[in-house]
Amino acid sequence: MQAWIDSVNWTEIGTKALTVALQLIAILIIFFIIRAVGRSFISKSFSKMSDQRNISHGRVKTLERLSLNIFSYVLLFILITIIVGIFEYDVTALIAGAGIVGLAIGFGAQGLVSDVVTGFFILLERQIEVDEYITVAGIDGVVEEVGLRTTVIRGFDGTVHFIPNREIGSLSNHSRSNMRALVDISISYEDNIDQAIAVLQKACDEAALEDDVIKEGPHVIGVQNFGDSDVVIRVIAQTANMEQWAVERKLRKAMKEALDANNIEIPYPHQVNLTKESSAG
Amino acid sequence: MQAWIDSVNWTEIGTKALTVALQLIAILIIFFIIRAVGRSFISKSFSKMSDQRNISHGRVKTLERLSLNIFSYVLLFILITIIVGIFEYDVTALIAGAGIVGLAIGFGAQGLVSDVVTGFFILLERQIEVDEYITVAGIDGVVEEVGLRTTVIRGFDGTVHFIPNREIGSLSNHSRSNMRALVDISISYEDNIDQAIAVLQKACDEAALEDDVIKEGPHVIGVQNFGDSDVVIRVIAQTANMEQWAVERKLRKAMKEALDANNIEIPYPHQVNLTKESSAG
Amino acid sequence: MQAWIDSVNWTEIGTKALTVALQLIAILIIFFIIRAVGRSFISKSFSKMSDQRNISHGRVKTLERLSLNIFSYVLLFILITIIVGIFEYDVTALIAGAGIVGLAIGFGAQGLVSDVVTGFFILLERQIEVDEYITVAGIDGVVEEVGLRTTVIRGFDGTVHFIPNREIGSLSNHSRSNMRALVDISISYEDNIDQAIAVLQKACDEAALEDDVIKEGPHVIGVQNFGDSDVVIRVIAQTANMEQWAVERKLRKAMKEALDANNIEIPYPHQVNLTKESSAG
Amino acid sequence: MQAWIDSVNWTEIGTKALTVALQLIAILIIFFIIRAVGRSFISKSFSKMSDQRNISHGRVKTLERLSLNIFSYVLLFILITIIVGIFEYDVTALIAGAGIVGLAIGFGAQGLVSDVVTGFFILLERQIEVDEYITVAGIDGVVEEVGLRTTVIRGFDGTVHFIPNREIGSLSNHSRSNMRALVDISISYEDNIDQAIAVLQKACDEAALEDDVIKEGPHVIGVQNFGDSDVVIRVIAQTANMEQWAVERKLRKAMKEALDANNIEIPYPHQVNLTKESSAG
Amino acid sequence: MQAWIDSVNWTEIGTKALTVALQLIAILIIFFIIRAVGRSFISKSFSKMSDQRNISHGRVKTLERLSLNIFSYVLLFILITIIVGIFEYDVTALIAGAGIVGLAIGFGAQGLVSDVVTGFFILLERQIEVDEYITVAGIDGVVEEVGLRTTVIRGFDGTVHFIPNREIGSLSNHSRSNMRALVDISISYEDNIDQAIAVLQKACDEAALEDDVIKEGPHVIGVQNFGDSDVVIRVIAQTANMEQWAVERKLRKAMKEALDANNIEIPYPHQVNLTKESSAG
Amino acid sequence: MQAWIDSVNWTEIGTKALTVALQLIAILIIFFIIRAVGRSFISKSFSKMSDQRNISHGRVKTLERLSLNIFSYVLLFILITIIVGIFEYDVTALIAGAGIVGLAIGFGAQGLVSDVVTGFFILLERQIEVDEYITVAGIDGVVEEVGLRTTVIRGFDGTVHFIPNREIGSLSNHSRSNMRALVDISISYEDNIDQAIAVLQKACDEAALEDDVIKEGPHVIGVQNFGDSDVVIRVIAQTANMEQWAVERKLRKAMKEALDANNIEIPYPHQVNLTKESSAG
Amino acid sequence: MQAWIDSVNWTEIGTKALTVALQLIAILIIFFIIRAVGRSFISKSFSKMSDQRNISHGRVKTLERLSLNIFSYVLLFILITIIVGIFEYDVTALIAGAGIVGLAIGFGAQGLVSDVVTGFFILLERQIEVDEYITVAGIDGVVEEVGLRTTVIRGFDGTVHFIPNREIGSLSNHSRSNMRALVDISISYEDNIDQAIAVLQKACDEAALEDDVIKEGPHVIGVQNFGDSDVVIRVIAQTANMEQWAVERKLRKAMKEALDANNIEIPYPHQVNLTKESSAG
Repeated sequence: MQAWIDSVNWTEIGTKALTVALQLIAILIIFFIIRAVGRSFISKSFSKMSDQRNISHGRVKTLERLSLNIFSYVLLFILITIIVGIFEYDVTALIAGAGIVGLAIGFGAQGLVSDVVTGFFILLERQIEVDEYITVAGIDGVVEEVGLRTTVIRGFDGTVHFIPNREIGSLSNHSRSNMRALVDISISYEDNIDQAIAVLQKACDEAALEDDVIKEGPHVIGVQNFGDSDVVIRVIAQTANMEQWAVERKLRKAMKEALDANNIEIPYPHQVNLTKESSAG
Repeated sequence: MQAWIDSVNWTEIGTKALTVALQLIAILIIFFIIRAVGRSFISKSFSKMSDQRNISHGRVKTLERLSLNIFSYVLLFILITIIVGIFEYDVTALIAGAGIVGLAIGFGAQGLVSDVVTGFFILLERQIEVDEYITVAGIDGVVEEVGLRTTVIRGFDGTVHFIPNREIGSLSNHSRSNMRALVDISISYEDNIDQAIAVLQKACDEAALEDDVIKEGPHVIGVQNFGDSDVVIRVIAQTANMEQWAVERKLRKAMKEALDANNIEIPYPHQVNLTKESSAG
Repeated sequence: MQAWIDSVNWTEIGTKALTVALQLIAILIIFFIIRAVGRSFISKSFSKMSDQRNISHGRVKTLERLSLNIFSYVLLFILITIIVGIFEYDVTALIAGAGIVGLAIGFGAQGLVSDVVTGFFILLERQIEVDEYITVAGIDGVVEEVGLRTTVIRGFDGTVHFIPNREIGSLSNHSRSNMRALVDISISYEDNIDQAIAVLQKACDEAALEDDVIKEGPHVIGVQNFGDSDVVIRVIAQTANMEQWAVERKLRKAMKEALDANNIEIPYPHQVNLTKESSAG
Repeated sequence: MQAWIDSVNWTEIGTKALTVALQLIAILIIFFIIRAVGRSFISKSFSKMSDQRNISHGRVKTLERLSLNIFSYVLLFILITIIVGIFEYDVTALIAGAGIVGLAIGFGAQGLVSDVVTGFFILLERQIEVDEYITVAGIDGVVEEVGLRTTVIRGFDGTVHFIPNREIGSLSNHSRSNMRALVDISISYEDNIDQAIAVLQKACDEAALEDDVIKEGPHVIGVQNFGDSDVVIRVIAQTANMEQWAVERKLRKAMKEALDANNIEIPYPHQVNLTKESSAG
Repeated sequence: MQAWIDSVNWTEIGTKALTVALQLIAILIIFFIIRAVGRSFISKSFSKMSDQRNISHGRVKTLERLSLNIFSYVLLFILITIIVGIFEYDVTALIAGAGIVGLAIGFGAQGLVSDVVTGFFILLERQIEVDEYITVAGIDGVVEEVGLRTTVIRGFDGTVHFIPNREIGSLSNHSRSNMRALVDISISYEDNIDQAIAVLQKACDEAALEDDVIKEGPHVIGVQNFGDSDVVIRVIAQTANMEQWAVERKLRKAMKEALDANNIEIPYPHQVNLTKESSAG
Repeated sequence: MQAWIDSVNWTEIGTKALTVALQLIAILIIFFIIRAVGRSFISKSFSKMSDQRNISHGRVKTLERLSLNIFSYVLLFILITIIVGIFEYDVTALIAGAGIVGLAIGFGAQGLVSDVVTGFFILLERQIEVDEYITVAGIDGVVEEVGLRTTVIRGFDGTVHFIPNREIGSLSNHSRSNMRALVDISISYEDNIDQAIAVLQKACDEAALEDDVIKEGPHVIGVQNFGDSDVVIRVIAQTANMEQWAVERKLRKAMKEALDANNIEIPYPHQVNLTKESSAG
Repeated sequence: MQAWIDSVNWTEIGTKALTVALQLIAILIIFFIIRAVGRSFISKSFSKMSDQRNISHGRVKTLERLSLNIFSYVLLFILITIIVGIFEYDVTALIAGAGIVGLAIGFGAQGLVSDVVTGFFILLERQIEVDEYITVAGIDGVVEEVGLRTTVIRGFDGTVHFIPNREIGSLSNHSRSNMRALVDISISYEDNIDQAIAVLQKACDEAALEDDVIKEGPHVIGVQNFGDSDVVIRVIAQTANMEQWAVERKLRKAMKEALDANNIEIPYPHQVNLTKESSAG
């Protein structure tokens, strides 16, 4: 035993330990320099971006904090792997383990990463803001919260929808401009189209006068379709945001009453009946 | 044989064994330090989170226990691979095996990991609680149990649905606020819209007086649609949670009786018949 | 030739062989220790779980045997790769081969692993038992067998469905509690709703008295919908499991006869006919 | 040149060649031992399985031959990579190549592996036999051939369907037991339900007496549904396998004639016509 | 400079060059031996297969040529990587490059490999032949060409469909046997079923006598369905391949004329009209 | 301690440090040369492309800046990994980490890369320009912004759609040429087809005279379909871009009035009524 | 410092530099030889292919240029990695980086590779030519451009569709032969089928005489279907390519006029009305 201990090359071990210690110190110094430089670079980028792109201060702060966190964690992770790497022998073993476990985790967690990447760009590109009315992933409602992992939407029926950001592909924002009100109204094949259009246009003009939320029109644009029993006339208008449904309801009522007043029929389904002697059956 | 044994460099083997032993001791010490530090860090994080975000104590305990378990298993796994790694030669062989088996396991088990990751965030973000009425993956019912791997929902017909968390994409929670009751009721094209709306609004106001669960409205909001044979009037109200269906049923009855009392018709499908001599057939 | 043989360093080869032999022995000893410890640990875990979670002895035995098998095979596999690894040169070649073949096998076999992982949790979480009536993957029937790879279900029409467990996502178990019987019945727009509800409720109460399998109700809950030609009344009840269809059939008959007896009409589709002179066609 | 040749360490090369030769011999010996042991183990496993699980001798032979082939090819593959590995330098190059080509082949061939894995279990678990009537992947027909890669089904219209086993997820076998015959028959709302059920049950009982393939029932189980113009009565029976359609056709004819004989109407669609003066249109 | 050149160990370089040259020669010899053995083995396998499985000589030649080409290219590829591998240093660099490029190519080209693998088995298992009428991937038509990458089908409307083999999952071949002709014909609820069946069977028997392509039947198998206004009678027959549509058309005409001759009605849709005084609307 | 420090081979460390420094300098020089050459090459390629393919200067600048950025970042990344690589020991550790983290990030970020690759080609191939009317991913509207990651489209109803470029598969651009106006108009089975076509063609010709945006036609091309109660005549025209809907509306009105003027009927649905004594029901 | 510089083994460095230089020269020579041989081989292959398969000179030139470019870039890439590889230390670092970045790029760019591979085969197998009328990915139109990445199709309505080649699975080319015109025309159940077929066949024969684009037929092939109120007669013809729609329109007009002239009815929907005293409702 003693012989074995003697035979151990203590000098070599000491040298090695010293080398390792020196390496650790060097790495830590480099680590803190890079960290400081990186954080300062990120902060400056965001403040510059904030100035240029006219993004609200609060949002920039959120993104900046996210970026700083990611940067710090990545750097820390690299630091750990480098320090682990100094003890030369064990890394390959880690890879072996990572081969089995990492695959499962990597696949399982990719959804999480995908959530965060998508969430980051939704924030950065200001695709949605809280209180906007949007449609994502087949669900529509008013945005309650835009998170990095989850977007929370409250539907008009009171349901709260939690949508992982990865499920947000195409995103439709209905709160960015005036909206279109569109009403299709039917008249009979027997009625005069020109007269009907004139009546409807007059009713629309009166409705527009009374109502501030109608921004443009409404215009009766013509014969949109030939139905089975009716000629379909289309009316469109531009309204203040979120007022399109109310305007549509008002226009429907106004136009129906105008047609009634002018004896123009909104036709029921029609059927021509032919009578045949029932010879066969 | 003896020569061979003599030729074995016993001193070298001893040295190596000693080195290995020293390494093992060092690794174990480091392992226990990291474990203690890590566990304490996790516990503190959760207690801090519990204070800040106002999460119930029980839920935090569940998440904390999960985190501690994962942390311990990961550390144990790293420890094992490091110890294995000290016996230098065999790791590559393990990789070779992992190449074949690990792939299959990794893919097969990714669903499991995906379940747990999703379950963790459902718990953390408090998307659902037991006894809430939710819709996930096309199934709706009342939450019976929120697990890390499986969420259990009881449908209104008594069926128990076991839903792996990975299948939970968008999650709709119907128990977080007042809900909307929505009733569409039809009147005839011949009826006066203003009168009908007045009658319906009066019936709704009376219903609201009698019923505490109606929180707001009901409002008759106007002409929602022109049907084939009917003008559709929409009524909406805000009700206490889970009372929306009962309110809708009450409103339907009340409005129907009000229309009857005022001789306003809920119209049957109409058809205009034209008669033609059957010359052709 | 002789020179070559002489030049071979027989001592070195001997030493190497000895080392290898010693390594093999050491590895085998470690292998058997780990195996014994692991098996004992698994057995204890399962007997503990059996006590705590109140799982039937047979099911625990199945899971225990599975776990022991997997543990033994994994350990055996590791042993083989370690032994292979002692012959240093050839492992990399194996990796090369595994690169091509392993990929194909890994992908091809992942379904198998996925089957077993899912099957394991179905057993462990007791999601289904033999003879329960369930719906999985769009197929419903009575469970005949719950295997690790395949679940066998017998449909009500006699078909035997073999369902690989990986295809089991959301799983609906219809045999865990009382079930709801739900009947929608129509009355005419001309009938009095209050009277109809009273008649129906009386018929339901009588049916409930006669029938033990009705556990709660039936309750006539009100006007569920306005149809084209009918007012839809909904009736719900709680029944013993698997008796919901029989109860629904009984309620339908009882309610139809009650309405007939009280001269309340279950209406045919209605149509209002208007006649117009066929001027146009 | 001569100097170069002289400088070549011929002794070393010879030693190396000798070592390689010795290695090759050792490897081949080990190979044949493992092969013999493995083949014998497989054969014994299958003969044991054949005894225990009562599987037909032919099927066991097929599976055994498959297993032996796979085992031999895998062993051969390992042998080749080991031999290749003895020439130390070139393996890494192979990996480089495999990186590009192997990926494409691995993905392209995974379908093939998936076919064979699925086919193996279909055979082993005896999910289908030749001449059974099954539904897989949306196709139904009679099994003509169960292969490891492809299952061949002949549809009732004469079409031969080749289905790669990987496309077989849930598999429905319609030839494992008696089948259910199910007939829905309508009576008028004006008819007496009790009388109709009595008439139908009598017709069914007579049909069952005449027909051996009806194994149980038919039972008239009650009012299944309220149609627009009809009350739907459901009749179910258990029949010999593959006779369900013939029984259904017979029951339909018998029940229709029974209803006719008792003046119970199978109703045409009904419509209530209301006439209104065409004031509006 | 001169000193540097002198210091170069020319002998060592020469030795190395010589070693490399010797290795190259050895590898080339081994290459040609394996190539010759492999090609001869493949040729023999195919000629054996041709004898055993009764496959046409042309098809075997195609498959043999494909197999020889693949074998040669794979061997050539291995040869190149081995030769590259002799220059020790650069392989790892190649892997680095392959990591980026290979992934993209591998994924991009996997479709190609998948095409060829599927095409190979379609040829080998003789699933389709030129001029057969098949349905694949939702497209049906007559096979024009079966290639390793693409299958060309000409639809009945003249369109030429190019279908990559990977898109061929389940494959339905309609040209392998007699086909079923199936005609559903309706009679009135007022008609006598027995008489109608007798009339139809007589018409079918006469049609079968006149027509050689009807191989079996036609059989009037009974009441297939109760329609809204009609009792549906099903007739099936076996016909020569591709003649099923012509036979169906002939049967339809013959049966319609037979029913007409016997005053059995093919009923128009029926409706029972009830008249109610329009009190409500 | 002192002994250990003495034993450290300071000369060796110095040599190593010097070597590393020299390497760093060499690498930096090479880096800047490649960077300069690469940037100049990219700039020239783009200016050449600009000349040849007639692409607007602004778009070329955008693409050039993108290319220069990517090139610089890739080069920088390579530089960093090379510099990191000079400190030999730690790279493998990085790989171990990358095995776990990189997989998750790689999968999570692939969507981002896919966005940019698709966006690059949409820009390069000039598939869309701002203000064009397009359909992508089931959404149609006018392009507001074509970015590398996201394409922004404004729907006609005012909704702003953010579409990640990866979701853009097939892209339909409706603003690249004259568009087709297509109107189907029905006439009665009793009307003379030739006369109707003549009347319609005359009305179309008059409409074309009045309207500049009609570029070709409209042509009455004939009987497109036999409807249940009508013969469908199709009219097509070529119009200025985005004017197709207005032209269609004008043509509909003109043709309806022309048919009215010529007493040609646009038929209502027809039905032949046969009356039967209600013997059965 | 001086000591350190002295201690640097300048001779060794010089030797190394010399070796590297020699290697570079050797590699470059090999590179140019392989490049010349490869390019000449590719050119010859294509000119041979051009002769054998009768492919137009322009198309061969396109494919040849593509192949030469790919070959040159691949070779260049290999050259660079080999040269990089000569500086031994840094490659592993590159792999580490590639592990993270390459994965994302590889997945992101695979679509691009897939586009080019598919495009190559579409060109090589001449599946489509400019100006042919095709259907791909649910879009039909006339081919405007066949590129390696994108296929451009102009729809009949003027829309330009850009379709990435990867989205082209099954490809339907409608411009490769005569096309089928298919018209279904209805006659009454009361009409004589033989007479109707004779009348229709005569009308078709006359139409065929007048019209050169009808290549075969039209044939009246018989009773295709029994409709609710009509017997459907099918007529098919072979026409010149792209003339099928015009022929169908002409046949429809001709056959309608022929039936009119012979007093054969194209029936309106029929309904048999039964009247019942409204006892129930």
